[in-house]
Amino acid sequence: MRAPKTFRLHIGIFGKRNAGKSSILNALTHQDVSIVSEVAGTTTDPVEKPMELLPLGPVLFIDTAGIDDAGDIGGKRVTKTLAVFDRTDLGVIITNFSDWGNYELQLMEEFKKREIPFIIVFNKIDKYTEQIDIISELDNLKIKYIYTSATEGDGILDLRQLLLKSAPADFINRPSILADLVGPGEAAVLVVPIDKEAPKGRLILPQVQSIRDLLDYDSFCMVVKERELRQALSIMNKPPKLVVTDSQAFLKVAADTPPEIPLTSFSILFARFQGDLPEMVRGAMAIDNLKAGDKILIAEACSHHPIGEDIGTVKIPRWLTQYVGGKLQIDSVRGHDFPPTISEYKIIIHCGACMWNRRAMLSRIMKARQAGVPITNYGLTIAFSLGIFERALQPFPAALDVYKSQQTN
Amino acid sequence: MRAPKTFRLHIGIFGKRNAGKSSILNALTHQDVSIVSEVAGTTTDPVEKPMELLPLGPVLFIDTAGIDDAGDIGGKRVTKTLAVFDRTDLGVIITNFSDWGNYELQLMEEFKKREIPFIIVFNKIDKYTEQIDIISELDNLKIKYIYTSATEGDGILDLRQLLLKSAPADFINRPSILADLVGPGEAAVLVVPIDKEAPKGRLILPQVQSIRDLLDYDSFCMVVKERELRQALSIMNKPPKLVVTDSQAFLKVAADTPPEIPLTSFSILFARFQGDLPEMVRGAMAIDNLKAGDKILIAEACSHHPIGEDIGTVKIPRWLTQYVGGKLQIDSVRGHDFPPTISEYKIIIHCGACMWNRRAMLSRIMKARQAGVPITNYGLTIAFSLGIFERALQPFPAALDVYKSQQTN
Repeated sequence: MRAPKTFRLHIGIFGKRNAGKSSILNALTHQDVSIVSEVAGTTTDPVEKPMELLPLGPVLFIDTAGIDDAGDIGGKRVTKTLAVFDRTDLGVIITNFSDWGNYELQLMEEFKKREIPFIIVFNKIDKYTEQIDIISELDNLKIKYIYTSATEGDGILDLRQLLLKSAPADFINRPSILADLVGPGEAAVLVVPIDKEAPKGRLILPQVQSIRDLLDYDSFCMVVKERELRQALSIMNKPPKLVVTDSQAFLKVAADTPPEIPLTSFSILFARFQGDLPEMVRGAMAIDNLKAGDKILIAEACSHHPIGEDIGTVKIPRWLTQYVGGKLQIDSVRGHDFPPTISEYKIIIHCGACMWNRRAMLSRIMKARQAGVPITNYGLTIAFSLGIFERALQPFPAALDVYKSQQTN
Repeated sequence: MRAPKTFRLHIGIFGKRNAGKSSILNALTHQDVSIVSEVAGTTTDPVEKPMELLPLGPVLFIDTAGIDDAGDIGGKRVTKTLAVFDRTDLGVIITNFSDWGNYELQLMEEFKKREIPFIIVFNKIDKYTEQIDIISELDNLKIKYIYTSATEGDGILDLRQLLLKSAPADFINRPSILADLVGPGEAAVLVVPIDKEAPKGRLILPQVQSIRDLLDYDSFCMVVKERELRQALSIMNKPPKLVVTDSQAFLKVAADTPPEIPLTSFSILFARFQGDLPEMVRGAMAIDNLKAGDKILIAEACSHHPIGEDIGTVKIPRWLTQYVGGKLQIDSVRGHDFPPTISEYKIIIHCGACMWNRRAMLSRIMKARQAGVPITNYGLTIAFSLGIFERALQPFPAALDVYKSQQTN
């Protein structure tokens, strides 16, 4: 499924003709698998490049390379440039310390006036030295900037992180957890086992968020323990659009849910909502390559009273050890602590990060990707260990594709 | 409905023959309407008196008056005294400052050994002066005591409060919010309107507690907004045992729920779970007697970020003013602040106290009763204003009786 243009983050690339706009875009492009062919434009029209830009997801780069900037946006080509501002969600000014001047300041003013978030890329840092006066001025104005050398490929991964950090929250945050899979006026069934981890009188946050998400989008749900699921389904004269279960009850729930009813887990929903589901499915499947002695990082987002404490510290280590048939070196981190170098790890297993925003989780996924380390979450690890990926990923074609292609390899 | 003996708090009354056990019991008895006739006993058997003791609810007093204490529990009647200890949930030692001695110390030791909570009543305080040495010893041991003069009726209301404070939590706290009305393997429908008061991604605590309560007792539920209720009921081939709605959506929900399905509100459930439903129904009906110029106390349990802030400060004052057709003097309190004298108020309207334990709420109900001031909660006030008490109280016979008898008056 390709995201329609309307859902893509529109990133406007601005800068003087020789600033390196095209080489920056090429450098971003060459690192990504899912390049989409360019939309043809006349020489004076901006070129639009739809991409799956990690970790942001579907974006549309609007490259103003074709616009003959005369060094002044007030000039004769102003209409076309202003039209790009009109549809920009996130602005990128590409420049260098030699060329920085009035044109860039005018771009900044225009972004500010329109309240469009923007960043500055000082490209060609291999050729032009940093100028402290410009930098301290930007620091004072709290404007985000970065250094790159596009032709050398330097700073491109940091640029991705800065784009993630600067993108509007509306784009980063998915509109719904599961209501899009259910639909207005339709029912889901949420299977909520009650175990010691659920504090007395409460439900864990992902369950509450899921119920609220359905209500927010005019859907509704049956909430039931795994033991009463069969009974709950039997009193519904219309099958629910989706059954969602806690991963730990998956086998019982799969047995009691007729095969024609779509079934998934809260962990899979939250890998999609808070992170990147295909990436985390790929991560979970890397468990198959683990062997005794490998280093593993387990990361818990909550620093206090983590709900999943025994999952992360007991259940998953025990299961992984059994699975590889030998000892593993398991490191654990908490809260916002994260090792500066992670390339030594064979896999990162993260909690669902239900207390974080998606931007924070995407940033960690990006760091894992930068280091070439597979990353997944607790629930997906459990789901993978139970062998239920194929059924649980049916509602998510892109993730199912990843699963099937990895399986074939 | 009378509580079976097994659910009554067994309060053992101990003390020397002349300490005033019977006069204390009589004083408690004379203040309550619902006295139950004594269970006959032989002269040497303890007498059991089942009572509805406000604010505790159903209790069974075990009066050891018939036991011929020889001033030593190690004496020849020891078996019968020890048998009373065996079934005592809460002990009361009745004594006075003249008779205090070895026998009372032995009783204390016995309670401590058995880990039974107990209190000491210094009776006949009109005749015998307080002895500082005894009191400071009890203070050091953190033993709760109280002064009464049973024949004068002094201290009896304070004794009730101390019994409430000392009763085991298991007795004070109701076992379930609504699962007892639904039953295992059966469904409830919870109607949850989504308005500005429900923070993004959350449900308010009483809703979460209700869902969890049903799961804890092997029931399950449909969770739906009022707009989709009709649709949700239509896909159930067996009617739910109960529909529960937020009070503010009551009229719409009542219209969409077939009359044969029991219907109530979260506020009514919580008046029962956290407080005393018949008492708070009586309190709500006192609204009918309000007139312009009356003083009203509105009490909010949360001191920070109260969910019901605009209900307590805006909606209820506005509606009451309209209802009485004139200005009211409305005082507001927050958290654990409560005016020392409340008898000037014509009514106390309390929040649902969902963050408190039931003991705290029962204590406030008791204070209101002591002062002769009707007390009710936000939700019941709204429910009363909507004129939906008769249907909403159907599942609660005792509360419905109160409503009907008050209505007849």
